[in-house]
Amino acid sequence: MRTVPKGQTIYAFAPEISPVMSVEPQEPVIFETIDALGGQVQAEDDAVESLDFSRVNPATGPVRIVGAEPGDALAVEIRSIELADRGAIIAGPGMGVLGDVIERPVTRLLEVVGDTVQFAGLELPVAPMIGVIGVAPEEGSFPTGTAHRHGGNMDAREIGPGATVYLPVAQPGALLAMGDVHAVMGDGEVCVSACEVSASVRVVLRLVKGGAPRWPVVETAEEIILLVSLPTIDEALHEATSEAVRALQKALSLPFEEAYLLASLSANLGVSQLVDPNKTAKAVLPKTLVGPFERWCGASP
Amino acid sequence: MRTVPKGQTIYAFAPEISPVMSVEPQEPVIFETIDALGGQVQAEDDAVESLDFSRVNPATGPVRIVGAEPGDALAVEIRSIELADRGAIIAGPGMGVLGDVIERPVTRLLEVVGDTVQFAGLELPVAPMIGVIGVAPEEGSFPTGTAHRHGGNMDAREIGPGATVYLPVAQPGALLAMGDVHAVMGDGEVCVSACEVSASVRVVLRLVKGGAPRWPVVETAEEIILLVSLPTIDEALHEATSEAVRALQKALSLPFEEAYLLASLSANLGVSQLVDPNKTAKAVLPKTLVGPFERWCGASP
Repeated sequence: MRTVPKGQTIYAFAPEISPVMSVEPQEPVIFETIDALGGQVQAEDDAVESLDFSRVNPATGPVRIVGAEPGDALAVEIRSIELADRGAIIAGPGMGVLGDVIERPVTRLLEVVGDTVQFAGLELPVAPMIGVIGVAPEEGSFPTGTAHRHGGNMDAREIGPGATVYLPVAQPGALLAMGDVHAVMGDGEVCVSACEVSASVRVVLRLVKGGAPRWPVVETAEEIILLVSLPTIDEALHEATSEAVRALQKALSLPFEEAYLLASLSANLGVSQLVDPNKTAKAVLPKTLVGPFERWCGASP
Repeated sequence: MRTVPKGQTIYAFAPEISPVMSVEPQEPVIFETIDALGGQVQAEDDAVESLDFSRVNPATGPVRIVGAEPGDALAVEIRSIELADRGAIIAGPGMGVLGDVIERPVTRLLEVVGDTVQFAGLELPVAPMIGVIGVAPEEGSFPTGTAHRHGGNMDAREIGPGATVYLPVAQPGALLAMGDVHAVMGDGEVCVSACEVSASVRVVLRLVKGGAPRWPVVETAEEIILLVSLPTIDEALHEATSEAVRALQKALSLPFEEAYLLASLSANLGVSQLVDPNKTAKAVLPKTLVGPFERWCGASP
């Protein structure tokens, strides 16, 4: 099995990142990822203030996919996520939704035992997901902690085993990297972090020629999730609404006004994370209505 | 069966609204509600511009609940929602999330046939819910189209059959009114309206003495949904996060910092509506974690 090791990480998605490996479509690949804290938190008295933020959010990769060209969609089929047996979570003043309220930094280690995460005597069911996943963007350099059209730190709960993430290829070879796996997280990731764990992610990569979405799309068994990341959640929700309308127009050949009404009836707007430099909104559509991504991707409008 | 007829409506929740009926706790009551457009849209060429907005969002009631006192929670157990056989949906410039994009007003009538809503040749599964539900506030007058601590136009999808809504009683007798039933709606209600229908809502009312929540709470079989409505979705999401932390502190006797971390792991922040004068955010907690509302309501902090 082709494996991208932990040591091969990037801290920014940029057009010129250099691939560490080339793979063929349909070839299974394992990404060994480091936790989003860069492995710096190993004890509960490891102070949040002393974190080296230049080592936060490492993404393993990038991997070049043979044949990927700008305008394609890169399909990342997530087959499995194997978690380390311990994670960590941090919060502190100035970080997270209540960064204006919390008075002191706090760190907790979280044991991952079987299908549970242990926290304060509670057992939370694990729900593994990939926080950072992206490709080289068309232009600009995006720190791995920032999400945008290329993907990045979207922190979408839906990006877990069984899901397929569709990313817009903007550079030859796509140049895929990922990291920031969470053992469990709530929509919003309100305290700024979740159960941050190292992991082993097994994926199969596939190309949809000419199928590049405008923003990353996740497909699960039942749903299409459109992910938009912009500086404010207001802007992101506005654009996610536009994306939902556009998807309905394309999937069902509807004029704008009809698709807008249908979005109001059937699209569930929501949030993925509220705590990174760009905030991530989602619009969730039932596949009973729009069908799979590949049925309507790539076409106008 | 005690029935509050369609003709008995209010257009604002205020401290001094006059009850049209008194009921005992545990006595089943039917509220006959008028659609949120006030029954003004009966044809697809009924122009949005000619709507009389003083007749929009009628709420049936208010009903006085014997024994309700400020500081209590009024539990509204929703037993059933019987829908009219036709609804309507509207949108137009300046309204809804894409009010800056849509170029002309549009009105559609929607047939409700069995368990489906018919739209553009599609069949959407009905999911009845109450858009406006509230009690007399402590002070101020809130148009029924505006949501705040007293409830009002929260447009939460979860307020449907089988759910219980807990509202903070602020005036003697509580003074409950409701309306704006939707046959189906997506989170966000992005175009400004949903499938607006008249309906017959059967509820049982109950008091939780001294149990007033700070903001309305919905309980379903699996979840606790905390609803916060403020002028921007940013403010509402911030306050909903605070409410989630507070609920976790109360339910699990945790200090603030622990509850904040746990919220990041287990609370799902989201949106109910993005289109009314106050926007409604939600924080969803699993009952496996916090248990039923009545276990932790009313206590400090």
